[in-house]
Amino acid sequence: MDEDSYEQPRAVADDTRYSLETRLIRTLLHAFGNPPIGFTLWNGDKIGPLGSAPVATLHISDRRTLLRLCTDPDLQFGELYSAGKIDVDGSILRMIEELYLGAAEAAQPMSFRRRLAAWRHRRTRNTLHGSRENIHHHYDIGNEFYSLWLGETMAYTCAYFPTPTATLDQAQIAKMDHVCRKVRLNRGERVVEAGCGWGALALHMARHYGVKVRAFNISREQIAYARERAKEQGLANEVEFVEDDYRNITGHYDKFMSVGMLEHVGAENFEELGRVIDGCLKDTGLGLIHTIGRNRAKLMHRWIDRRIFPGAHPPSLKEMMDIFEGRNLSVLDVENMRLHYAKTLEWWNILYERAIDRVAKMFDERFVRMWRLYLLGSQAAFTVGELQLFQVVFSPGRNNQIPWTRADIYQR
Amino acid sequence: MDEDSYEQPRAVADDTRYSLETRLIRTLLHAFGNPPIGFTLWNGDKIGPLGSAPVATLHISDRRTLLRLCTDPDLQFGELYSAGKIDVDGSILRMIEELYLGAAEAAQPMSFRRRLAAWRHRRTRNTLHGSRENIHHHYDIGNEFYSLWLGETMAYTCAYFPTPTATLDQAQIAKMDHVCRKVRLNRGERVVEAGCGWGALALHMARHYGVKVRAFNISREQIAYARERAKEQGLANEVEFVEDDYRNITGHYDKFMSVGMLEHVGAENFEELGRVIDGCLKDTGLGLIHTIGRNRAKLMHRWIDRRIFPGAHPPSLKEMMDIFEGRNLSVLDVENMRLHYAKTLEWWNILYERAIDRVAKMFDERFVRMWRLYLLGSQAAFTVGELQLFQVVFSPGRNNQIPWTRADIYQR
Repeated sequence: MDEDSYEQPRAVADDTRYSLETRLIRTLLHAFGNPPIGFTLWNGDKIGPLGSAPVATLHISDRRTLLRLCTDPDLQFGELYSAGKIDVDGSILRMIEELYLGAAEAAQPMSFRRRLAAWRHRRTRNTLHGSRENIHHHYDIGNEFYSLWLGETMAYTCAYFPTPTATLDQAQIAKMDHVCRKVRLNRGERVVEAGCGWGALALHMARHYGVKVRAFNISREQIAYARERAKEQGLANEVEFVEDDYRNITGHYDKFMSVGMLEHVGAENFEELGRVIDGCLKDTGLGLIHTIGRNRAKLMHRWIDRRIFPGAHPPSLKEMMDIFEGRNLSVLDVENMRLHYAKTLEWWNILYERAIDRVAKMFDERFVRMWRLYLLGSQAAFTVGELQLFQVVFSPGRNNQIPWTRADIYQR
Repeated sequence: MDEDSYEQPRAVADDTRYSLETRLIRTLLHAFGNPPIGFTLWNGDKIGPLGSAPVATLHISDRRTLLRLCTDPDLQFGELYSAGKIDVDGSILRMIEELYLGAAEAAQPMSFRRRLAAWRHRRTRNTLHGSRENIHHHYDIGNEFYSLWLGETMAYTCAYFPTPTATLDQAQIAKMDHVCRKVRLNRGERVVEAGCGWGALALHMARHYGVKVRAFNISREQIAYARERAKEQGLANEVEFVEDDYRNITGHYDKFMSVGMLEHVGAENFEELGRVIDGCLKDTGLGLIHTIGRNRAKLMHRWIDRRIFPGAHPPSLKEMMDIFEGRNLSVLDVENMRLHYAKTLEWWNILYERAIDRVAKMFDERFVRMWRLYLLGSQAAFTVGELQLFQVVFSPGRNNQIPWTRADIYQR
């Protein structure tokens, strides 16, 4: 990339000697804290970032694309990139990292428009029916698609890399053992799992820890896949896969486990989740919730909410406490594994790129680009600390049969 | 104790066949969920608990004492016990446990009166001057007094018992190593400690981890004691004890450490504490706050607030998040060590009872009883889960040099 061909870094937004396009782009970059991103326009014009070499250059295909981007960049970048109206030369990952880092500088309290969006979200989204629609949107697009890049375990949640050199499959198994150890599974216990994906953890618990599992999920495709696996592995008597909402959990259990569901629950339902846990967990029980979270409350990125995860909300720890505090559930242990999710996504991105020809055949080019952006954007978000990964262990407040220390988790 | 001499368990509060005293006591017990506590009156009358044998029997010295107790039991039990107007036959510890368990059944949302108290508390208590008064009240009553029952380390915070059979002194040293490991102290680093007690941890960090420590405390007696110890141990160049408020911390540090101070900060100052941490902790730094807490927000017990810890407030995790969320500080690790504090207090209670003759000589009988009630009441509160002990590790949100896992904490 030829840096000299870029215009010199200075404020040009109001300088009429510059083209309208240049002034629009300068204004846009300013709103994002002047990240090191360059632009190449349809007419060959180049507009460089202020003060440093670009980590990526956006190729804008026409004037209409530029105008749409400038009007609502949060939403439109994803739309226009997916549609092929914007191409990226350089690292999408580094570009999104820089966007997060730059935008944080100019962070604003929640605007009226955002509040309105939050209110609509609360009113319409994660009802029993709404949750089913939302989950269907993301998880029922085809088990074969996910099998291309999730690795052998089909675990679609943050892995745990005991060392950074572990493989993805090793790390997914290590994650399953990590959460099993954290809730101190004992042979013969009854475990309820809220949101079980394709069933890997439920089957792992039954096979390696000798427990009976009831696993809930409202994704029809995932439940069908999980039941098939249970049969293949001879575990159909040990693991019951229930196609139903976590709000309909019945029975009493020694352990409550939920890995990667809370993101889809919505903060407005946290008290209700607390009620469900309080109702099904024995007095001497332990529970674990593993979830994407944030350092402070914030709405989901709008493009992700529209195209990838409708109704999703990664909560802050403060928001999460609504699950526990109303029911005298005692938080025993919180671990933040943010960088493990960055590494998990690094693996998924490599496997995804290896499979894009097949993805393109299954879907189309727009889908390939949409999911590339989502997966790279997620990796960037965990790398810069825009997103966190929390594992929270808890227990009924009166339980004195809680683990004495955490040393046993780390003894092999 | 002769159970048959007690009246039969039934509701008698409105039954005029019973004496006024009996009806008062039944009403009182009912308000606390009918705990198994018996009463013996000045005239020899005995009133037993409903439905079970008493864990303790209160000897009420006169009618005026009974009336005071019934008017405002939360506050007056401590006052009357301290004054010797009430004696306890049986286990004070078990009695307070039963009171906590029973009262939780009938827990109410915060009344107007409590809200008013909370508001007064907020308005008047933990200013720079107010904090100094509050801390003086508790910590400056004599280093010799504390040395009678805190053990050799003079650490007046929850110990960490690697196994339940460790001694108090072993467990206090293990606690110091536990927090040092959690913030991954490295030789040559600069550490700031907010609220350093008698200096045990500051000196331990300097001696065993080779770090430079600036330790803040507003208790004059503690600071004097700590400086003396630093000189004796030849660590006066490694550890600087500063008699000042945490709000006046200056400089930049690799690590922030605070063990047992947050209880005295007050939730209204948590954002300010976040500002202080954000201002003094390096971008690659780690911090730890060790504090008594709760499963949900609640005001301090009124008698403890009046006689023992004016201005103190053990926060819920939700309240604590105000320290972190406004400043993009990332919570990495939370550990709840409630039962370790119950065991620590069990040790303190044994040592305290061994020293009561000396305590009586230093102060008076009222003081002996007041502190016995406080120490036993605290043990009961941790045993039943009325109080928690949280250790929270955190870091600036952009720091990617955070610990990869927690396994290293447990490797010896």
